[in-house]
Amino acid sequence: MSKTTYWLGVDLGGTKMLTALFTAKFKLLVERKEKTSGQDGAKAVVAHLQELIAATLAEGGITVKQLGGIGLGVPGPVHVQTGAVISAPNLGWHNLPLQKILERSCHCPVRVFNDVDAGTYGEFRFGTGEQARCVIGLFPGTGIGGGCVYDGKIFTGRENSCFEIGHMQAVPDGRLCGCGRHGCLEAHASRLAIAADAAAAAFRTDLRDIKSRTLAKSIAAGDAAIETIVRRAARQLGVAAASLVNLFAPDIIVLGGGLVEALEKLYLEEVRAGVTHHAMPLLADRVKIRAAQLGDHAGVLGAAALVAEARGRL
Amino acid sequence: MSKTTYWLGVDLGGTKMLTALFTAKFKLLVERKEKTSGQDGAKAVVAHLQELIAATLAEGGITVKQLGGIGLGVPGPVHVQTGAVISAPNLGWHNLPLQKILERSCHCPVRVFNDVDAGTYGEFRFGTGEQARCVIGLFPGTGIGGGCVYDGKIFTGRENSCFEIGHMQAVPDGRLCGCGRHGCLEAHASRLAIAADAAAAAFRTDLRDIKSRTLAKSIAAGDAAIETIVRRAARQLGVAAASLVNLFAPDIIVLGGGLVEALEKLYLEEVRAGVTHHAMPLLADRVKIRAAQLGDHAGVLGAAALVAEARGRL
Repeated sequence: MSKTTYWLGVDLGGTKMLTALFTAKFKLLVERKEKTSGQDGAKAVVAHLQELIAATLAEGGITVKQLGGIGLGVPGPVHVQTGAVISAPNLGWHNLPLQKILERSCHCPVRVFNDVDAGTYGEFRFGTGEQARCVIGLFPGTGIGGGCVYDGKIFTGRENSCFEIGHMQAVPDGRLCGCGRHGCLEAHASRLAIAADAAAAAFRTDLRDIKSRTLAKSIAAGDAAIETIVRRAARQLGVAAASLVNLFAPDIIVLGGGLVEALEKLYLEEVRAGVTHHAMPLLADRVKIRAAQLGDHAGVLGAAALVAEARGRL
Repeated sequence: MSKTTYWLGVDLGGTKMLTALFTAKFKLLVERKEKTSGQDGAKAVVAHLQELIAATLAEGGITVKQLGGIGLGVPGPVHVQTGAVISAPNLGWHNLPLQKILERSCHCPVRVFNDVDAGTYGEFRFGTGEQARCVIGLFPGTGIGGGCVYDGKIFTGRENSCFEIGHMQAVPDGRLCGCGRHGCLEAHASRLAIAADAAAAAFRTDLRDIKSRTLAKSIAAGDAAIETIVRRAARQLGVAAASLVNLFAPDIIVLGGGLVEALEKLYLEEVRAGVTHHAMPLLADRVKIRAAQLGDHAGVLGAAALVAEARGRL
């Protein structure tokens, strides 16, 4: 490959898909964002994605031959060797061999990662987590995602991606989680859990209206009940973070996602307090707790850098 | 170093110290066990340890020049670069530069590890965890220790040993733990926690009498109240194990320590049930849950193999 190799990063979410074309030094050339229509089925989403990739390359004036590879982050566990998506509930996908499908159609190397892993790697390489030995990413949103970069590599199992912090046990015999189990962190501290509490407090019924920014506005306007609900959830995330500190002795915890973007100060305060009060002092004293720096770009940057690393170009 | 290099492993506990001399292929030549007298102060314990090491070498007919190194497991967090013991509550130690002290007096390379890390590494290399990518060791006893071998290496922080599973949050606002915090796993599921519950149930006051074997005998004799108490604690360990499965996607969880040795079947059942009911099915299905195979030898074998590895002899 010549010095003119380019890398394409994709962040495939349940509501939007984002593509970004980077130079060999990961300077952004082109980015595109479109809505995902998961309800149209896997075939339609993959076709849409293929069009978007082609359009991104065309806009950048880059041919596939100049492309070192495509890295994708997807919202669910992946098979680390084959790049198959094991499940992506927001897209209705089960066992979709995404890497194979795209390698055939795009005629270039493709690697598939869990989206939170890709985002954590992006922050590690280009954002707030640079140079650390162990970086943990916590992304509270509709659910609660987590990722870990340890010794410069994504932390995975032998076969599957892991670090499913949303399903750590937070409350014995607690609330029913989407996964069918009780008491998962996600069932108590995600945006949906907060929205359910807020709806109950305000006698409202449509949880979809209760977005992160809506919560931030209510708190800014002095709504003490909403602030109490959100602080409780953020603190619960902090207690889980304390368990992670006791297990991993990370250098940095990076907080990102919609809730943190809307309520950065509150989240930093409560997660810091949770770690201080629940982790071993020796380990709690050493961990930095930071807000993510790259926003939406963390995922596409991370996925692009990961495919480049897999291709031995870093 | 010639082929006649030998390795010495030490397991330094709060109540006993165990030394074992191994060949280059980790065949046991000599082992010795003596009581530790922590109340006599660090100086006395270190002097006793030095005598025991000398006696072990003498019994094996080995000189220090034939020794590749000494590996020690100690009951507390260690500084991974310097081999200083950060704290060992059972010995009353704080910031003891054990590696430096022993290297000066023994005139050979010394490495210091957390005892549970050494035991988990021993099981990984020579016991039930062989060849796995990720092995987690859980050792419920007086407290609850944990260790992890990931990609063939002890999982540690940049500066300190970690994997303090005894202080993972198990119960929000739960029982007061020895660490000064509330709701730690250790405060709810260790032998001391079980003993406290059993004592309350039986109107007894001296928890030291309620050993693991005493509990096993009561259960074998049909004491349903004791069985309920122990099963609850073992299940709580299983729920914590489920969180570890969700985070690490381990290949094997190895259960060891006094409680498991006395009540192996019960512990395997309850930890398996905890993982099945609380971990994500995808990850729960893949993890093997096994009883440790090496007993007291895991720690000395692990420490000896770790110092050998550090010296580039594996």
